Amino acid sequence: MIDVAIMGHGVVGSGVAEVLTKHPDNIAARAGEAINIKYILDLRDFPESPLFDRFTTDFERIVNDKDVRIVAELMGGLEPAYTFVKRCLLAGKSVVTSNKELVAAKGYELLSIAKAQNVNFLFEASVGGGIPILRPLSQCMAANEIDEIMGILNGTTNFILTKMISENMSFEDALKMAQELGYAEKDPTADVGGHDTCRKVCILAALAFGKHVYPEHIYTEGIENLNLCDAQYASSADYAIKLIGRVARAQDNRITATVYPALVSSDSQLSSVNDVFNAVLVRGDATGDVLFYGKGAGKLPTASAVVADIIDCVKHLEARKYLFWEDYSDGYVCDHNNDVVNLYVRAGIESEQAVTAIKKAFDHKDISLDFLCLPPLISKKETAFICGPFVEKDLRSLIEQIKDIKVISILHVID
Amino acid sequence: MIDVAIMGHGVVGSGVAEVLTKHPDNIAARAGEAINIKYILDLRDFPESPLFDRFTTDFERIVNDKDVRIVAELMGGLEPAYTFVKRCLLAGKSVVTSNKELVAAKGYELLSIAKAQNVNFLFEASVGGGIPILRPLSQCMAANEIDEIMGILNGTTNFILTKMISENMSFEDALKMAQELGYAEKDPTADVGGHDTCRKVCILAALAFGKHVYPEHIYTEGIENLNLCDAQYASSADYAIKLIGRVARAQDNRITATVYPALVSSDSQLSSVNDVFNAVLVRGDATGDVLFYGKGAGKLPTASAVVADIIDCVKHLEARKYLFWEDYSDGYVCDHNNDVVNLYVRAGIESEQAVTAIKKAFDHKDISLDFLCLPPLISKKETAFICGPFVEKDLRSLIEQIKDIKVISILHVID
Repeated sequence: MIDVAIMGHGVVGSGVAEVLTKHPDNIAARAGEAINIKYILDLRDFPESPLFDRFTTDFERIVNDKDVRIVAELMGGLEPAYTFVKRCLLAGKSVVTSNKELVAAKGYELLSIAKAQNVNFLFEASVGGGIPILRPLSQCMAANEIDEIMGILNGTTNFILTKMISENMSFEDALKMAQELGYAEKDPTADVGGHDTCRKVCILAALAFGKHVYPEHIYTEGIENLNLCDAQYASSADYAIKLIGRVARAQDNRITATVYPALVSSDSQLSSVNDVFNAVLVRGDATGDVLFYGKGAGKLPTASAVVADIIDCVKHLEARKYLFWEDYSDGYVCDHNNDVVNLYVRAGIESEQAVTAIKKAFDHKDISLDFLCLPPLISKKETAFICGPFVEKDLRSLIEQIKDIKVISILHVID
Repeated sequence: MIDVAIMGHGVVGSGVAEVLTKHPDNIAARAGEAINIKYILDLRDFPESPLFDRFTTDFERIVNDKDVRIVAELMGGLEPAYTFVKRCLLAGKSVVTSNKELVAAKGYELLSIAKAQNVNFLFEASVGGGIPILRPLSQCMAANEIDEIMGILNGTTNFILTKMISENMSFEDALKMAQELGYAEKDPTADVGGHDTCRKVCILAALAFGKHVYPEHIYTEGIENLNLCDAQYASSADYAIKLIGRVARAQDNRITATVYPALVSSDSQLSSVNDVFNAVLVRGDATGDVLFYGKGAGKLPTASAVVADIIDCVKHLEARKYLFWEDYSDGYVCDHNNDVVNLYVRAGIESEQAVTAIKKAFDHKDISLDFLCLPPLISKKETAFICGPFVEKDLRSLIEQIKDIKVISILHVID
């Protein structure tokens, strides 16, 4: 029997306790040993819980108990999670976590400690909730060179965008609905500002390309300024708008990594990923496109991924699993302004020559230009077009120079 | 350095050699050791191959060479693959294979030998080609009770069905096109008859529910009798037709397992899986629906899955990976006639009372009935409807008793 400790009894933490105690025999069969929850760390009391006698408010009991071989950190946030995880690893315990903020900020350091201590540090649940992504990436695709990973990694923003596109709901109304349904937190900044997606891109990038990328290295644009008019243009032209996290191999062992809302063509598998669902598209040189799809959040999906990591730790108590990456190095992430992109532009028409001026701006360049039809609900004097592919900063400079229009919004376009 | 042997130098076998030799340093880093192809078994000569000096026609050299720790079987078919794999396992070598026929027919026996010999027998490439399915199923979802797996598991038939639905092509023309493009073999029986799908369902069922299921236990219907008219009805009513392999948990530790073409509603993620793509939908009690999507066949996708298994064998030369299931037991698979289903029925109208007779047949039952619109291309005197849900044999008996119509075709419907 293996003793484990669960730190945090919130949504995910209580889910982990539930999954571990719901089918204990099956889990024991899969792990090769029974798993016993010895401690649950939480500042609150849970007298109604069937596990009421396992609760403690004292982290020292856990870290000093030699019998506890595996600790699940499900508190979220950077502190005290970081200090606790570090001390558990240094004490020779394997740690599993669903905390993407922690892994994105401290993954390299914690993996280094785990390696030195010959224990495991696993975090399948930190990306894609219950969708298996990290393990297939690191194992099943071991024989591939990964060229690109692109995904819808945040269920809250995807729910809001789905409502905006399919029900013509404003950003504010959709956010309010998401909050009422429990999909969005009271302070939705991490989700709608793209920071949650950014942290997941850090983790995917590190796993796929072998080097830690910190959140500050990734250009991140949220959906908070997205206008309903843009959603209507997109929708009439058969595009969806999705918050896309993306990392791709670039020249000279560098990578590009971005997070932004983008028009996604209906030909893309990602365009039909709606509501709170997540999807990750992995492009490998041998496999081609592989897509993983499912619920990216929620109590039981996330908990099941955490428990799968716990089972893996039990099976690898002696033989450490290979999971490691290098630290970030200067200049590793390319400036996104040099990426080749397609852009959607919506602009007010300031004179009768506007359309001619737009056409002229993109003339005799290797740039294609498509005007979008005016959606039925928009009656203002404006126009929208998609231009590219071209180096982002040069394309933006061409757009800026067009006289006779006033740019209202610019969004990326992904085929 | 670890010596491996590749048996078979056809499409997948040559792909495995290519993947192993294309990025040897990356593969060595991931496996923890360099991987050396010591032998390639094939009856043919390949003087142009850069590995020309590794070829042998003599299986005894491989099985008797103690240095060869891992053998990849990529010959396909039951014999001599079965005999060779068995002898390699008995000789203490780990074996990886992409051969679904072999695993479906002999999986339990070969896993038992592998267990007794403390070596690995892995077969990720046997289902879904390059899409990671088996490993996520057995590992990432270890904390789930799986309720159902449903998938499009054969690219050839999916290509044909896509052409029939989206381009109004007849089965014969679509098959011919698939053969010309190299997607279908000269003798397409295993694909279009559903047998290939059936073998993959056997493997998925064994992995998800822990008991071997042999192909003869699974009700299997191919697509060879599918009529273009059915495709047109389906398409006008916003359904796709897909060859669906399915296995689900039933009462009393039994399962249901079937392979048949079915109308799939456009609400299902499976309906938009087109051309040669495969997708597998896994329903877990904790994760909810998770979908894996990608190219289910092809040289490099399949080869990359085989190489991932080889890497896993290298990493687990001493510590065996947990992968095992029990043998089949009598009555384990339920009679599919007792499944609760929805059926699509197309029938000739034999009298003016036909529609009244159909309505009457399904009156005062817990069965819903929906008539489909006559597609523009069909001018005959006929009708089509969807009825259910109801126990299959009883529903069929109700349909048979309807006077005034002559049933032309019946297909399953999946929401």
